[in-house]
Amino acid sequence: MTDLPLTPLTRVRRLPHYQVTDRAALYEVVDGALAATLAIVRDGRPVALPVGIGRDGDDVLVHGSTGSDFFRRIAAGAPVCLTVTQLLGLKYARSLFDSSMRYRCAVVHGVASVVPAEDKERALLALSEHLMPGRAAEVRPMTGRELAATLVLRLPLAEASVKDNAASAVEEDGDGEDRTVWAGELPLRVVAGEPVTSPQTVGGTPVPASVRRSQLVASGGTV
Amino acid sequence: MTDLPLTPLTRVRRLPHYQVTDRAALYEVVDGALAATLAIVRDGRPVALPVGIGRDGDDVLVHGSTGSDFFRRIAAGAPVCLTVTQLLGLKYARSLFDSSMRYRCAVVHGVASVVPAEDKERALLALSEHLMPGRAAEVRPMTGRELAATLVLRLPLAEASVKDNAASAVEEDGDGEDRTVWAGELPLRVVAGEPVTSPQTVGGTPVPASVRRSQLVASGGTV
Repeated sequence: MTDLPLTPLTRVRRLPHYQVTDRAALYEVVDGALAATLAIVRDGRPVALPVGIGRDGDDVLVHGSTGSDFFRRIAAGAPVCLTVTQLLGLKYARSLFDSSMRYRCAVVHGVASVVPAEDKERALLALSEHLMPGRAAEVRPMTGRELAATLVLRLPLAEASVKDNAASAVEEDGDGEDRTVWAGELPLRVVAGEPVTSPQTVGGTPVPASVRRSQLVASGGTV
Repeated sequence: MTDLPLTPLTRVRRLPHYQVTDRAALYEVVDGALAATLAIVRDGRPVALPVGIGRDGDDVLVHGSTGSDFFRRIAAGAPVCLTVTQLLGLKYARSLFDSSMRYRCAVVHGVASVVPAEDKERALLALSEHLMPGRAAEVRPMTGRELAATLVLRLPLAEASVKDNAASAVEEDGDGEDRTVWAGELPLRVVAGEPVTSPQTVGGTPVPASVRRSQLVASGGTV
């Protein structure tokens, strides 16, 4: 895989030693997230909304309603900034100044393209596979009306930066701080609870494999 | 408390029944989050970066380095959009089309002001209290040099919208879907693991109360 390019938009300006240009690291951040924040400029002002995401090869997919002004502007070529953040923990240094968060984040700049009708179902299945692996096989197929009501956008993972301080130390030797004060890290992670069955579900219907699998993965287990 | 105003920037256009105009709901979303995404317009394009946040009354506080181009632009009056998202779960409907995420999100529009030097320490302590409650009392005070290197910005929680589908049903009666397919929800939440002590810490130093408290709160316990 080629490295991520350093451009005026992707060169990390603050704490540049946390920048990672390995494309695999970008994929890891995107693949490890369910949601991201998508920003555009509207009437000269920034507007940023949460979206579900899924990677499809070298692109990230997002979807919305064909009735959404926000998505229609993106479909019409408005430049976007997609920000994916994984918060991994809190770093408790011996001073507030050096305290910070443990995180990985990806920032993707670009212009999205509309997935054409003939590729829309495949793209939505790829998105579904990212968000709810295995679920598509458990439910009915999408209808033509549903497909028509959905706008699927493809953003190339071309001009992107990754910042990752997951492996950084909480503190540096020789910083003059008092070592009798505790310093360290509080790791944070997302876990899944027990699935909650919808009351309309026919009694005795078991929780399906897709849900059990996501529960296990989110809770740190292996499949 | 006054309700959140409905303006062209805050009126939710998609799924407006999820909009909440109760100011307390906005505070709850902000108070329940450690990080958010802050977006600006730079050279006509959106740029959105993750930031730590803390609420101080009717404002949200963010901080950065005085050397940061991004924060300097905000300090100079660039309009911002702050997006706070709490992902609460995955909604498995009986179709992919109706499947979605369970979330709360707040979107705040405005122009931030620079916290003046004389109020900076108090503001940073408020931010610290949000991110790491009780920690400030366990570490040394901030130095003048540290304060000088830090830019603290105050964004009014004035023009803001909240969208919350936490209480929405996974499905509607009479939607014609097959009730023998399982539908329901997989709840997601952030939990804290065991604190990891920095190797430079003097042996035997106990994990302090602030860290234990955040561990307990993040893991769903009560203080």
